[in-house]
Formats: sequence, structure tokens, C-alpha cells
Amino acid sequence: MSKKLKVLIVGGVACGPKAACRLKRLMPEADITLIDRDSIVSYGACGLPYYVEGYFDDIETLTHTPAGVPRTAVFFEKAKGFKVLTRTEATKIDRSAKTVHVKNLDNGEECDMAYDKLVLATGGKGFKPPIPGIDLKNVFFMTHPDHAESLVREAKAQGFKKAVMVGAGFIGMEMAEAMTHKGMEVTLIEMAPQIMPGILDEDIALFATKYVKSKGVKVVLGERATNLEGEEAVSAVKTDQGTYPADLVVVAVGTRPNDKLARDADLLCRDRIVVNEYCQTSDPDIYAGGDCVVNKYAGQNAGNQLFVPLGSTANKHGRVIANHIAGAPTPFSGIACTGIVKIFDYTLGRTGMSENQARALNLDVEVTTWAGPDKPHYMGAKPGIIKMIANRRDRKLIGVQVAGLGDAGKRFLDVSATVILFGGTLDQLADVDFAYAPPFSPPIEPLATCAHVLSNKLDGLAKGISSIEAHKRFEVGDVVILDTRTPQEFKEVRLPYDVLHIPLGALRERINELPRDRDIIAMCKVSMRGYEAQRILNAQGYDRVWFMEGGVIGWPYELEMGQ
Amino acid sequence: MSKKLKVLIVGGVACGPKAACRLKRLMPEADITLIDRDSIVSYGACGLPYYVEGYFDDIETLTHTPAGVPRTAVFFEKAKGFKVLTRTEATKIDRSAKTVHVKNLDNGEECDMAYDKLVLATGGKGFKPPIPGIDLKNVFFMTHPDHAESLVREAKAQGFKKAVMVGAGFIGMEMAEAMTHKGMEVTLIEMAPQIMPGILDEDIALFATKYVKSKGVKVVLGERATNLEGEEAVSAVKTDQGTYPADLVVVAVGTRPNDKLARDADLLCRDRIVVNEYCQTSDPDIYAGGDCVVNKYAGQNAGNQLFVPLGSTANKHGRVIANHIAGAPTPFSGIACTGIVKIFDYTLGRTGMSENQARALNLDVEVTTWAGPDKPHYMGAKPGIIKMIANRRDRKLIGVQVAGLGDAGKRFLDVSATVILFGGTLDQLADVDFAYAPPFSPPIEPLATCAHVLSNKLDGLAKGISSIEAHKRFEVGDVVILDTRTPQEFKEVRLPYDVLHIPLGALRERINELPRDRDIIAMCKVSMRGYEAQRILNAQGYDRVWFMEGGVIGWPYELEMGQ
Repeated sequence: MSKKLKVLIVGGVACGPKAACRLKRLMPEADITLIDRDSIVSYGACGLPYYVEGYFDDIETLTHTPAGVPRTAVFFEKAKGFKVLTRTEATKIDRSAKTVHVKNLDNGEECDMAYDKLVLATGGKGFKPPIPGIDLKNVFFMTHPDHAESLVREAKAQGFKKAVMVGAGFIGMEMAEAMTHKGMEVTLIEMAPQIMPGILDEDIALFATKYVKSKGVKVVLGERATNLEGEEAVSAVKTDQGTYPADLVVVAVGTRPNDKLARDADLLCRDRIVVNEYCQTSDPDIYAGGDCVVNKYAGQNAGNQLFVPLGSTANKHGRVIANHIAGAPTPFSGIACTGIVKIFDYTLGRTGMSENQARALNLDVEVTTWAGPDKPHYMGAKPGIIKMIANRRDRKLIGVQVAGLGDAGKRFLDVSATVILFGGTLDQLADVDFAYAPPFSPPIEPLATCAHVLSNKLDGLAKGISSIEAHKRFEVGDVVILDTRTPQEFKEVRLPYDVLHIPLGALRERINELPRDRDIIAMCKVSMRGYEAQRILNAQGYDRVWFMEGGVIGWPYELEMGQ
Repeated sequence: MSKKLKVLIVGGVACGPKAACRLKRLMPEADITLIDRDSIVSYGACGLPYYVEGYFDDIETLTHTPAGVPRTAVFFEKAKGFKVLTRTEATKIDRSAKTVHVKNLDNGEECDMAYDKLVLATGGKGFKPPIPGIDLKNVFFMTHPDHAESLVREAKAQGFKKAVMVGAGFIGMEMAEAMTHKGMEVTLIEMAPQIMPGILDEDIALFATKYVKSKGVKVVLGERATNLEGEEAVSAVKTDQGTYPADLVVVAVGTRPNDKLARDADLLCRDRIVVNEYCQTSDPDIYAGGDCVVNKYAGQNAGNQLFVPLGSTANKHGRVIANHIAGAPTPFSGIACTGIVKIFDYTLGRTGMSENQARALNLDVEVTTWAGPDKPHYMGAKPGIIKMIANRRDRKLIGVQVAGLGDAGKRFLDVSATVILFGGTLDQLADVDFAYAPPFSPPIEPLATCAHVLSNKLDGLAKGISSIEAHKRFEVGDVVILDTRTPQEFKEVRLPYDVLHIPLGALRERINELPRDRDIIAMCKVSMRGYEAQRILNAQGYDRVWFMEGGVIGWPYELEMGQ
């Protein structure tokens, strides 16, 4: 009788349990043990901000299955058929002996555990910046249920009024919402000159910042937290430029991989553990997945080293690892760096590369920004913005970013991630047979409209400029601004500049009011009429005409309202 | 100086105006005229049920741009730069002379209009079944704003109480909702043995029917309306099996193409006008698009003749036609037969081929149905169902159908349509880097989970059977039903049969309670645990084990509630 395959899994949050469950279904005879230094495993860490906000009252909800069964060691043993040892730390791998040295954190006992296949799913940890005061009371991180629980407990006990959020990434945005909902005054401090740096381009970030401010969040950009002040408890965050009073501080300035075990074992690492498409490390009997590994980009034309720690990817890795161990390998295509966040009623997200990242790789990119309604106007539409980035040479989609009310953003990202996975072009994206009915979308899906606009730019038909570029020109004042909207629209809201207001329907008749020797920037509500005006003027020999992408809806600066 | 290109467009709803607008932007010098026999053009016909329901009060909203500008002949001339002649009917094409004979329906004047390029965008018309009483008062069709307006007017004047809807396709479902919201008692009569025949498979239709009935709509299947009774106004619908009292009747039993002009001109037609990928008819100077043409399927393995009249496709055709006329051709990839409908809080839809259609083409298909939450349970998840159809030979995605609360359905369809366009496999679908955050989805997107289940079936790991098949077996009573849910879940709701209730966590210990000589069907809430039980039993030598796909959530029949 053949020996049972011994599989040891280190790490019990997402990738580890997924690998164990899947493997047990594939190889019921395998002897699988999962260890974790923590006392709980398999929890929904992404749900922490929603616990703080008050979506649910019991933190243990995060460790339950959808059917309400707690995911404990007993559950995994009984229902899933593998052993879970909590409070058990792996301290060293002996690759030649194929053992892992482990320590029981409760009683200090140590031993060696043998493996045939080892899985490192050790995840990441929140980065703790080495600044004075970081260990003061009421300074929280948000990477473990204990953190969220103590924040909620202390908020109730101490009645926090002023919250400072250090870091404006995904967690920062979610926590800004959560703490605002709890009635706190929230200040969001970000070292970079924009929110969500490295995730969103400047223009989309600027637009989202306008919205976040409108919800009462104070946004402080381009300032670095230098120390946290206070006696016992924190009382203020000092930056290189100011001081911000705080009853509590949440720090979320990125994560670092838990890859020491791998490095000590001389497994190939760059900034994380390096794995192949089957999640094998440089030792073929050792797999790694989740937040501790380097990801590969699924699209073309991109660098290969990516670090995007996400529960969705960790789960995919777990499955890939199990399949490979079981002898039914399924290579992982890689990630598209998709990310999404809800902040109040707003959806912000991206997939593929940002414009910045694409330009940094010297790709020949063209970009557009579309703004408009997510549904027909008669169905109660909400406005949104899509930024799209494509390669000029092969018309392939490079990336998409979204910002707007409602949750249409997710479907735009999901479809775009699919197109990127297949290396599709803008023309193919526009040809997708999107599901259409008035409660869901306009007859032409906004993503397709945006692809059309970008195609028109690639073809030299549409000459759009971004609101950021337009803003610079308007501030200098060397262009004619042509507002093509109706008198009613013009009365309600306007750009705060001298503009020539000619409704599109009157443009052909009044074309002589426009100078031929100056640059003209046409605009409207979303910029369909701006583009139309550009084409009408082009046809009459005006060559120095652009339209402002996104129009009034996509304008991230102040507007003049009313009379 | 060269002569201006003369373009004549017949038909002014969706494809026609789109072609004209786009062409004018591409070729400002073109001389474009659009004619329509109607007095209004470019209206949102898909919005009619929502006008009836009361989403908006003024029917003219449907002819306005999102900025509120009416799309009149003057609007098109002034803002878009082409001529629109309403109440003008095209009666005959003279292909050798390149003229169209037209008649002014107001003054009876006739003339010939010359063209260099002709576009037929003549659309379709609601089929009027030749049954007695069809012309009675209070019998409505729903293909023109006038119909919706008179229905609403008469409902107010006459105070309709009993509505009968003949035909349970897209319009039928939308109107059933609209009339229920107006306080009427609604009976939905469908000739086929299921709702949405030809669109949904029987199982998904069955499930949706359960929901529609729960909203108070009486659903009558498998009965053919034979005549409408009444003196002046309709009073009842008679079918081959019964009589249904009615104050008003709405008839929506499909549409027919307006292709007489094309047939009379000897253009190649099958059941509609035949066009190539540039929307050219058999005469290269005559284009056709929208509801009057035969569509090509974008996916592999499918027949080429499809008729799916949709505003989204009509708009795409308009663009393709304009691009080809302007000398910048962009071939149209075809459609995926995507369709979606909201009924009350429910989303129903499909893309690609149905199981029925795929089997009719003798494709070697495998199918699964997944049921589950659209979000993590702690975020207030709503249940939904996904049916997925793939090709056994190449693992390519063939089709997807959705049913469920909320609007997650649209994103599932859009992504699936994208995968079908690219000829992608289940494995590629599951690898898409879906946007994940708790307000939007579980860490593993339901569409990916469904693709995993279907992969597991293709690989022989998962042995699922549909609820319809399970139901047949349960009724015969020759199988052991193994319910693997928790005692609490079992107490709340159960299948109305004798079942063996062993929670999954106890199954390994209590396995001997299960007979080895009988077929076993395992089930749970959604069927993850059912599948898990199947694998556990398989590992112990039980070979005759299946799990019931969709579990309790996906069960389209009655359930036993409470104690």
C-alpha cells in the first residue's frame, strides 16, 4: 500500500484553506495539515472596515461560512477533512530533510513536521512606519479582526470625535467612510500628491477627491506623517507641513510580505517569493500563493513583477496549487491588477495598467475620459466616469479606470479585465454584445461608447483633451472656450471662465463668431456635443479645435452654479 | 469639384439616426437625408413599459436627448447636419436608376429620391395574430409611443382592473410588472410550456416563474389565445383551454421584419434581409441594419441565422454602416444573443446559446447550475442563479443564463458575452481578474465559481444533477436524499420528501447510515456541501452519488417551511 501524500500548509487565511479544501476533494487520501500562528483562521479580512462601519455586530461573522457555520479547526477537520493547528508557528524549513520546524505558541513545545509537498501561504502584514508615537494608545492598524474589534470597543468607550486616517489606499478610503458613518470628523492624510497613488491616475483621483470632500472628509495630500503626538494615547498626527488633532489614528500605508521563512530557506525571492504559473517556488516541492508572492501580469506589454495583495487572487492561487499537487495542473493566467473600492455611494476602481504605468514602460498610449449616465435619462440615471488607455500601435486595451455613483463600475472593470486577459482591441471591446434593457444601461453600453471615443482619437477624428489639460489652458486664458449646451443647462451650471455660449444647434449659423486664429476648446455636459462641435468646425476649415473630455460632469474643479 | 455623396436612409428609430449622425461626423460633406413614415423619429421604444409603469410622466421624454433636447427634424438638421423627412414613406427602390420612390403621407405627393448609398433601417413591427377580436377596443400592442400613451390614458379613464398579457417574452415580462405596479390583476398567457421560450431554458424559466407568481402575477402556460371576446371593448381572452376575463389585453407575441422594400427590390433575404459583416445587402450600394436584418453569431459552433431585435445591436449596425460608407470599414463581429429583463426586483437574462439551442446543433455540451449569494453574507447578500453551458470537447463557453435578485446578472452576462466573443474556455473565464471588494462580490466571483463547478463536471470530479432531474427522481422515490445542512437550516426549510439529514461535519462519522446499494442525491443550501458530501462518499467507495445543483436556493418547486 502506497504511503499517503503528506501536505503541509503554512498560513490559514485565504490561499491556505482554499488549497487544503480543494486538494482534499481532489485527493481524499492525502494527509493535509494546515498550521497558523494565529488563534483564528479563514476569516474575511476584507470585511473589517464594514464591521467598523456597523454592517454587522459580531466580528465572528467574518469567520463563518455563508450558512453560518464557524470555520474552526473542528469544522475543517470534520467537514473538510484536514487538520488545522492554530497558535502554531513555522520557524524554519529544512528542504533536504523535507521538514518544517514548528513551535506551539501556547505551550512553547517545538517539533519537526514532515512534508512531501509544502505550501507557503504566509500572507502579508500591515507596514508599521518607524515613526515616533506609532505605539501610542488609539493607533490602529486594520489587518486583523482584533484591530477592528478593539477600535469599535474603544470608540464606544472613549467616544472618539476626531479620526485621522494615514494612507489613502483601498483601506484608507474604506475606513474614511466607516469612521464618517460612525459620526467622526475624518482627516485623510496621504504622502503622495493624490489619493490612491499607484492605483489611479491623477485625473481620476482628482475627481474622486472632489466627491470625498463633498462628504465631509478633509483630504490632506502631499504630506508625510512624521510623528504621532500624545502622552499615553495619541492626540495628533504631525506631518512635515502641519499638525492634525486626533482621538484615534488608523494607519494603512501598504503591506509587506511574510516571506522570511522562504528567504531563510533560500527560495528565490525578489520583493516577494517568486513562483511559476503553477505557484511552485524555486523548489518544486514547495508552493507559495496569496499575498506573499510576486504576481505575473495577464496582459501583454507589461512588466512581470507585480504585487497586488487581494483575497480574490489568493483564492485562485490556492486552487492552482491544489490542482498541481493533485496532478491535474491548470496554469494561472496572471492578474490584471484589478481593484475596486466603494466610498460612500461612489465606486472607484481600475484594471490593467494606469496611464502612468503604461507611459513608464514607454508604451505608445492613447487615452480618453468619458463621462455620462449609466442608464437612459428616463430611468433615473447616475453619472459616472470611465478613463480608458489603449496602445496606439495595435489598438489593444491597456487599462480602464472608473469613478462614479452606483455600482456600474464593477461591470466595466470585469469586462475590461476579460478583454485584457484575451489581449483584445478597442474594436472588439465595442463589439461585445452587452446585455441591454433600460433598467440596466443605455442602448450603447458606456464602456463601448468610451471605446468608440478612444478609437475616434486613434483615427484622428476626435481631438479630445483631458480636463486637467483644459484647466491649465483655461487658467492661462489663451483659448476660446465654446460651450455648446442649451441656454437652460448654461443657466444652471457653468465653467468659471469667460466662455462663448453657442448651443450646438445654432453653431452652423453662428460659426463666424469664432476666430480662426485661436485655439478653441469646445465642451458640453458630457462632451458628445463638444466632439460634434469640433467636427462641425473642422468641416469649415477650423483646425485648432479640441473638445474637453468629460464635459461638466467630468470636471474635477469648481463650477459656477445658478444665475 | 466632385459631386457630394448622396445618402438616403429609410427608417428613423435607432440604426438610421445612428448611421446618419456618425456618417455626418466622418464625412461632413455628405448629403444625408433620413425619411420615416412616422411623425416622430429616434425614440426610445424600449422605454415604453417604464412609461406605463410610471417612471416618467411625459411620453416625449423618450424622444429627448439626455440633455433634454427633443430629437426633432429641426434638431437633426441644426445639430447633426442632415435632413429628416417624417410622414414620408418609401414605396419602391429602383436599383438601376438608384432612386427610391417616396410618398408624403400628409399631402399624398410622390417623387423619386436619388441616392449614391441607400440604408434600409426599416425595423420590425409587432406581430398581430390573426385571431377574432384582435381589433377590439382596449387591445394594445407595445411597439410605438402612441400605444403606451393610449394605454395609460385609457387606464386612467376606464380604471382597468384585470389585465391579460398575451406572450411571455421580454415585453410581456416588463408589461406584467408595469401593470401590476398600476394596481391591476395581471394574467400572463404563454403558448409555450414555459415563460420566455426560445430565450431561457426550461429550468431557469421554471425558477423565474416561481418568483413572478410570488409577486401576484397569474401565469398560464401552454395555452394558445384563440380569440378575444367582447362587444366593443375586449372583455376576455379565450384560449384553447380556458377563458380569462380582461379589461385590457396587451399582445406581445414577437415581431416581424419590415423587409418588403428589400424583397420587392430582389435583395437577398432569408427570413430577414441578408447582410455581410459591413451590413451591405446583396447590392453593395444598399446597406441594411437593425431589426430588419439577419444577424451573425459571434461565437463559434453556431448557426449563422439569428434574429434578435435589439436597440443595442441596431446602434452597432448604424456605426458599421457609416464607417463602411466613409471608407473606414470596421467589420461587425456579430451578436451573442444577449438579452436581459428586469421583472420587479428580479433580473433574468441570457447570452450565447441556451442548452436547448446547443443540443439542437448536436454540440457535445455539459451544463451546470450554480446558486448562491452575490456578496459576502455579512454585506447583505442576495441570492442568484447562474446556468452555464460549455462544450465538452474544447471546454469553450457556449452560453450563460441568469436569474436572481439585484442586478449582478448584467455583469455576469456582459463578461460571458465577452468570453464568447473571444472563443474563451471555462478555465480562462475563471482566471479573469474580477474586481473584488465586499460591497460588490464574494472573493471568488460567482461566475468564476460556476465555471469551476462546470470544470469539475467536465473533469469527472463533480457529479451534479439539475433540480428538474432531481425532482423527477424524488417524485418516483427511488433515491436516498441526503441533506447535509445544519440542524438550524433544516428546521427552517426543507424539501417535501423523506430525507436523511446528516450535517456535513458529521458525515464522516455517520457514513454507515448510508446504503451502498442505492442512488444517493446529496444537497444543501446552494450545493457546495452537497458536492463536498459527494466527494467524501466517493472516497469511501460510494459510486452512486450525485449532488443536486443549486440546492434549496435553486429549487424551483415547493418547499416545506418551519417546524
